Amino acid sequence: MAGATYSSAGVNLDLYREGMARLPAHMRRTHCPRVLGAEGGFAALFQLDLKGLFARGYDDPLLVSCTDGVGTKLKVAVQAGVHHTVGIDLVAMSVNDALCTGAEPLFFLDYVAMSHDDPDLLEQLVRGIADACVECGCSLVGGETAILPDVYQRGEYDLAGFCVGVVERSRLVDGRQIAAGDVAIGIASSGLHSNGYSLARKAVFDIGGLSCADSVPACGGRTVAEVLLEPTRLYARPVKVLLDRFGAAGQVHGIAHITGGGLVENLARIVPESVQIVIERGAWPVPAVFPWIEGLGSIAADEMERVFNMGVGMVVVVAPDVALEAQRLLADTGHEAWPIGSVFGAAGGERVQLR
Amino acid sequence: MAGATYSSAGVNLDLYREGMARLPAHMRRTHCPRVLGAEGGFAALFQLDLKGLFARGYDDPLLVSCTDGVGTKLKVAVQAGVHHTVGIDLVAMSVNDALCTGAEPLFFLDYVAMSHDDPDLLEQLVRGIADACVECGCSLVGGETAILPDVYQRGEYDLAGFCVGVVERSRLVDGRQIAAGDVAIGIASSGLHSNGYSLARKAVFDIGGLSCADSVPACGGRTVAEVLLEPTRLYARPVKVLLDRFGAAGQVHGIAHITGGGLVENLARIVPESVQIVIERGAWPVPAVFPWIEGLGSIAADEMERVFNMGVGMVVVVAPDVALEAQRLLADTGHEAWPIGSVFGAAGGERVQLR
Repeated sequence: MAGATYSSAGVNLDLYREGMARLPAHMRRTHCPRVLGAEGGFAALFQLDLKGLFARGYDDPLLVSCTDGVGTKLKVAVQAGVHHTVGIDLVAMSVNDALCTGAEPLFFLDYVAMSHDDPDLLEQLVRGIADACVECGCSLVGGETAILPDVYQRGEYDLAGFCVGVVERSRLVDGRQIAAGDVAIGIASSGLHSNGYSLARKAVFDIGGLSCADSVPACGGRTVAEVLLEPTRLYARPVKVLLDRFGAAGQVHGIAHITGGGLVENLARIVPESVQIVIERGAWPVPAVFPWIEGLGSIAADEMERVFNMGVGMVVVVAPDVALEAQRLLADTGHEAWPIGSVFGAAGGERVQLR
Repeated sequence: MAGATYSSAGVNLDLYREGMARLPAHMRRTHCPRVLGAEGGFAALFQLDLKGLFARGYDDPLLVSCTDGVGTKLKVAVQAGVHHTVGIDLVAMSVNDALCTGAEPLFFLDYVAMSHDDPDLLEQLVRGIADACVECGCSLVGGETAILPDVYQRGEYDLAGFCVGVVERSRLVDGRQIAAGDVAIGIASSGLHSNGYSLARKAVFDIGGLSCADSVPACGGRTVAEVLLEPTRLYARPVKVLLDRFGAAGQVHGIAHITGGGLVENLARIVPESVQIVIERGAWPVPAVFPWIEGLGSIAADEMERVFNMGVGMVVVVAPDVALEAQRLLADTGHEAWPIGSVFGAAGGERVQLR
């Protein structure tokens, strides 16, 4: 009997190397002068303070870190055979969280685990990741590709993302400054983003009996796959515009990324005990994808609001005197935004109300 | 028909919350005064420079980041029903990489993806992660727990880890200072660490026909599960001791974490073109686990050396005049270490030779 080899154990190093060889080009286009030697060594290096030409000094830097995955939206990608959009989702889920502290996203790392080596699949994923990093001004400095044939069923994969940002301590946004009179501005989501896909898939595929190629008249005739794989919106640019304009004066009081748990649970993460925030249903247009899923799955309205973002992907709570200008700046960056709620002194009861 | 709910779609929020509720206690015991508000918000906050009592100022800080998983060692954990040791492995794989730059590890985040909510499993994993973080002086500041019933088969899970460290630019260790005359000191591994498990499992389970509970006389009668799940050694303390003693004078020239690819491929990541490093087989004792696996799988000797660490988990290349003291310092921290090779001027051929 021939002896066991790594290759006979299901690890194809040639194919693995082929996949790896395609990645540096995607990584490099995300890099800035602050990235030092992200290739070859054991770790990625990122220079926090740049002196001279690109000077960005921090006096009391807080490092901000987030990690997240894409959840079962991956199942739709596998079903549809389209993989670069979930790469965008991966970056969005972590970077949008980091933005909630007022941080500048600095760099990103990905973990890709697959059932078998597949250089094309890997490149699609990393292309999406790199595209999103470029859009966010975030450098893709490292990653790990794991081939786990006995953990994942053939063709399945999982993704985890990790983002580090930095915020000057005096500029930290954490919701503690939210005060009575403040205005909650909702920024439009692009659709489901990357939450609630177990429920959405049940409604669309199991109960609705639809498949990826079917057309969805309610959503402008796009296919089911197109509707469900619409990438999570990246909020780095609009949030930067707001912080550049209002950050120094401390007029941005809170930022919430609306993920699983919907508006209520995610706003509760930043609203202090001393106040109550009231969000007005009907203050923004709910995109067609939500009633479509609600109808297919006969999902209760309150369940919808607990699971999905309902059209608002990010909420920024600002001082009342800058609310109009903030909304205009957001529109200038191409983001629809609406005043969706107001902050009151706490009157007992839930800190976040949807009415 | 009752409407679809998140719960009917396979996501049990109560069980999820029960799992989540167990984690903060484990996280908190890893925290230092530099961790700010890692709970509740959207992102973890870590203060880079502390003034006053715990002052640690950086003049030109480089952020060091790494990500890795545990590979199919996870399959052994699932087979054996023992999960805290792979948590240790997860931290070790990323932190040991970060150490290779001379960095101080600062914080760690984990991504845990499971087939279904299982608070006991989750707690075992995070207990191991937290134990390892404490040992490394690294704060566990965040994580994501993903329940993906349709991606993972029941009982299976995957882990990804992310570590961020910092190194003062003038103290960066990257191998460029490695020069003729330097000594390569090998630090003992604890066994297979977390690489080569596809091959090891094939040899032990498929070809050898053994199961987790079988005893391994060659390894002191420990069970197969104990031998294969021996956690990856954490090198944060011994490397810190070396850097504290020799870092300021720049006498530590290179550090390599020996993972997949073995001694040759991993040393090649740090050895500059101008020199050649020659590692002497027989300069250290190869632990019994390696010949045991080699024999079971009839694995060729060179395949063993390409896949496994063969008993050396970390290599530190130092200036010749400090080699003896370095070895003594390592012994004082409880780490067996041996001079395993020497550096010569490049004579053509491979930069790393094993002979």
